[in-house]
Amino acid sequence: MAQLYSSMKPTPMLKDELDIVIPTIRNLDFLEMWRPFFEQYHLIIVQDGDPSKAIKIPEGFDYELYNRNDINRILDPKASCISFKDSACRCFGYMVSKKKYIYTIDDDCFVAKDPSGKEINALEQHIKNLLSPSTPDFFNTLYDPYRDGADFVRGYPFSMREGAITAVSHGLWLNIPDYDAPTQLVKPLERNSRKFDLSLRYVDAVMTIPKGTLFPMCGMNLAFDRELIGPAMYFGLMGDGQPIGRYDDMWAGWCVKLICDHMGWGVKTGLPYIWHSKASNPFVNLKKEYNGIFWQEEAIPFFQSVTLPKECTSVQQCYLELAKLVKEKLGKVDPYFNKLGVEMVTWIEAWEELNSPKGTEARASTNGNK
Amino acid sequence: MAQLYSSMKPTPMLKDELDIVIPTIRNLDFLEMWRPFFEQYHLIIVQDGDPSKAIKIPEGFDYELYNRNDINRILDPKASCISFKDSACRCFGYMVSKKKYIYTIDDDCFVAKDPSGKEINALEQHIKNLLSPSTPDFFNTLYDPYRDGADFVRGYPFSMREGAITAVSHGLWLNIPDYDAPTQLVKPLERNSRKFDLSLRYVDAVMTIPKGTLFPMCGMNLAFDRELIGPAMYFGLMGDGQPIGRYDDMWAGWCVKLICDHMGWGVKTGLPYIWHSKASNPFVNLKKEYNGIFWQEEAIPFFQSVTLPKECTSVQQCYLELAKLVKEKLGKVDPYFNKLGVEMVTWIEAWEELNSPKGTEARASTNGNK
Repeated sequence: MAQLYSSMKPTPMLKDELDIVIPTIRNLDFLEMWRPFFEQYHLIIVQDGDPSKAIKIPEGFDYELYNRNDINRILDPKASCISFKDSACRCFGYMVSKKKYIYTIDDDCFVAKDPSGKEINALEQHIKNLLSPSTPDFFNTLYDPYRDGADFVRGYPFSMREGAITAVSHGLWLNIPDYDAPTQLVKPLERNSRKFDLSLRYVDAVMTIPKGTLFPMCGMNLAFDRELIGPAMYFGLMGDGQPIGRYDDMWAGWCVKLICDHMGWGVKTGLPYIWHSKASNPFVNLKKEYNGIFWQEEAIPFFQSVTLPKECTSVQQCYLELAKLVKEKLGKVDPYFNKLGVEMVTWIEAWEELNSPKGTEARASTNGNK
Repeated sequence: MAQLYSSMKPTPMLKDELDIVIPTIRNLDFLEMWRPFFEQYHLIIVQDGDPSKAIKIPEGFDYELYNRNDINRILDPKASCISFKDSACRCFGYMVSKKKYIYTIDDDCFVAKDPSGKEINALEQHIKNLLSPSTPDFFNTLYDPYRDGADFVRGYPFSMREGAITAVSHGLWLNIPDYDAPTQLVKPLERNSRKFDLSLRYVDAVMTIPKGTLFPMCGMNLAFDRELIGPAMYFGLMGDGQPIGRYDDMWAGWCVKLICDHMGWGVKTGLPYIWHSKASNPFVNLKKEYNGIFWQEEAIPFFQSVTLPKECTSVQQCYLELAKLVKEKLGKVDPYFNKLGVEMVTWIEAWEELNSPKGTEARASTNGNK
């Protein structure tokens, strides 16, 4: 199968089909390090904090930059659905992109090396993941059967070998693992780097997360097919004025996985790795997370129990149905979920508006070099 | 969590709690190569072919050996449930063992090396897998959270971090992958060894196969908790007089996974690797497999659709219920499944009989040195 797919689709770089979305770049080294890999792509930078502060983008990058004033101007009165002073605001970038694919990455994530010492082209691997099918209906024990040198093992039904369309590619992290605040506090020194010779603990695998199984989706190193699943990639209400933080990507992950399962699309996880350079402050994180830590105990069983009606045949329909259920079922847990349910609807309305011909005009005057 | 579990349970070698079950040893090098790892354990060898042919076991191993005459004598009249002239007969060994755990391995599987060149103690890794919990209800993106140096990632619900009891540990293969005959024919030269420096394509991961997801279970390198799931580890009717071969482990895998999901137990796959030395003949395999290739297209959707009744609270009850459903639903596909359904019941009867105090007497006079 690997041969079949690689001969069908020589891995393109998708220059004209992929945007890179980055929430605020605080670290000047970040873009320099990624230059060889990102320079040919268009960047959408969404500034999460004070709009009066200027972000300096090095020469040679093709980008557009949005701050809070831009978001308010473009979405008014629907800007309420976009978080402020939180990296969750990045989802505004998904909405204004006109490309088929999105790659999003945090500014403390650098280029990682594979066990042979070679720099990993994360984007190239994400594109491979997105362009090859997924296997959500049956588990392949040798992982992604579409990778070069791999295949389906004995006992894998032939009728399922075409696989499903891949909607999401979730990449991982070397060095600082993505732990919650309590785990960070208990294990301040743990690194994802148990040594095997000179290599790191590098798991050379891509796999499909099976249908019906939820996962904790991290937004640090994430690619997706915006045309397919974009309207469900809402990062919720976090940060300024909200009782919760650091659950933006988790929220999106629960919604996205549920809807991908309903639509018959696949979600992959594993390669590529990025190098996560610094752990965020666990005390600050605990303050952001503590409500989420309680609420996820209710939210996850809720998502595990939802079956979307067959009548929902588009992502937008699925998402609006989900918004209704969130208010109905999770509103009891905390009024926050009523507000979130309302803004989920606003998000879809804003998405529809911006992704219509009229929407293109709305964003005409924007900072950036394009 | 890794620390917690490793401090609770320093990895024991389970000398008195684990039997190694091997179907016919044709290869004299096999036991010599495994000597440092197997010598301390008790072996149960089940000879699959002509009982008049003697199998020579090297000095120093503690073993018991069963041939067809022994099986007939011990199980009569229930010996009909054990396959003849097929390695599926190994499940007789599971039945006569008195230990808590079983490790089963094929005689063309040798000791593999990890990327650092160190010989892999497969049994030790299987024991680690079985003694640490599984995570069937939610996916951990950094794989087994109970391994040293690993943990649950941000967004993993705390209430689920105790995990589930692990019933099965499914190990993988370097060198010759476990492919079906059509794939063997198409890709005669493929090896599971894409090079990364000097290492093989060694995926350094153990993971839980999520609840509700079936997988192709291979019997080449497999360990399980016999006391928990043993009665479901029936390798079906294959070989002599049967219209199918090479689906013994697959059949067991579908049944076992369904019942583990029902009972709330986990199934892990990944490490340890063994070195699979030789590919079996694809032409012979095709003859054995062709019915299975058709039938699995019906059998897998059947297994995916079965929900066992809540009243089934033991593996035996689950298995008898499943036998009934197999006759009802798969009997229409081919009369073979009616016969299989009948022998599934016989298997349970035989299991109950041998695993009672009376059963111990029945197997008193056996070949071997113990």
